[in-house]
Amino acid sequence: MISAARELFRERGYHATAFSDVIERSGVPRGSTYYYFPGGKQQLAREAVAAAGDEIEEMVAVAADNARDPASIVRALAEVVAHRLESSDYVQGCAIATMVLELAPTEEELTVDFEQVFDRWRNALVCHFEPWGIASQRAGILADLVMSTFEGAMVLSRAARNAEFLRTTADAIAQMIENETRKMPVLTSPSTG
Amino acid sequence: MISAARELFRERGYHATAFSDVIERSGVPRGSTYYYFPGGKQQLAREAVAAAGDEIEEMVAVAADNARDPASIVRALAEVVAHRLESSDYVQGCAIATMVLELAPTEEELTVDFEQVFDRWRNALVCHFEPWGIASQRAGILADLVMSTFEGAMVLSRAARNAEFLRTTADAIAQMIENETRKMPVLTSPSTG
Repeated sequence: MISAARELFRERGYHATAFSDVIERSGVPRGSTYYYFPGGKQQLAREAVAAAGDEIEEMVAVAADNARDPASIVRALAEVVAHRLESSDYVQGCAIATMVLELAPTEEELTVDFEQVFDRWRNALVCHFEPWGIASQRAGILADLVMSTFEGAMVLSRAARNAEFLRTTADAIAQMIENETRKMPVLTSPSTG
Repeated sequence: MISAARELFRERGYHATAFSDVIERSGVPRGSTYYYFPGGKQQLAREAVAAAGDEIEEMVAVAADNARDPASIVRALAEVVAHRLESSDYVQGCAIATMVLELAPTEEELTVDFEQVFDRWRNALVCHFEPWGIASQRAGILADLVMSTFEGAMVLSRAARNAEFLRTTADAIAQMIENETRKMPVLTSPSTG
């Protein structure tokens, strides 16, 4: 159910997704859904948002495991997101951006949840940037820049049905990070990051 | 009507905005609305999207008139958007991003309109970047980066009820552009740009 809800929220947002659409997409028997989700669509949204936070942390961890430096992490993440857009014919973007723009800051509980996902994403990036000698405050700004660029490039990509925006803008950010880290001593082994 | 529609689409998106909400927000007499907007909400959306394109071109032109270089244009635009978010208590972001994420690429006519707004925005930036010696292809990538960063930072700002994301990320991009343009000869006077 949560997975089906995330797909639908990604594709068309919160308002155009009915609880019954989620049941239909998930294929689960209708009877049990109200038992597990007494809070209805809002509860589903909150669980979908939390799941998006888990997923983004895992995406950053996987990208970092295979990366040689912060710039490679950014490029690897862009490739994952670009591929998701392309393989879904540009309907599957970010799991929460549509909901943020529809609901924040009016829906207060969900707005706190949205902010937490971005905090988790930021922290995941920062903890892989800092070991390369990027100062804490700068690492936070670069993480915000990566998140903003990705979120915005997904909007442009959906409008143009072309995910190259993700790759070229992420590459520009990656080059910028390369220029900064080239000048810095590596403070600790990246494997500890 | 179009102005009221843009406000509502910005605040809560397309699906949660009824034609009657637009009439109410605009304060115009109900009788004439169906005469001017026989296409209903979709027609309103298309006119709102076109108006967003006009607005963004004007915003870039105003920012460029008061700017000494491409980096100042980026910082000035960020200030305008950050101020709009702050003064609306974070409900007024981009006029089209919410609709893009709700409707693209499924709603084909509107998707073409969305793409045109981003094309107009890109061209407006590129024509102010190139006179500073930035090569055409690079100017396009920087314009995409500016648009992506702004669109994404608006999402983060609404979730966090804090528009500093716009200022800090735009400043990081502006610094990057400064580093690039510092090395380049100015090809033509910026006043011709």
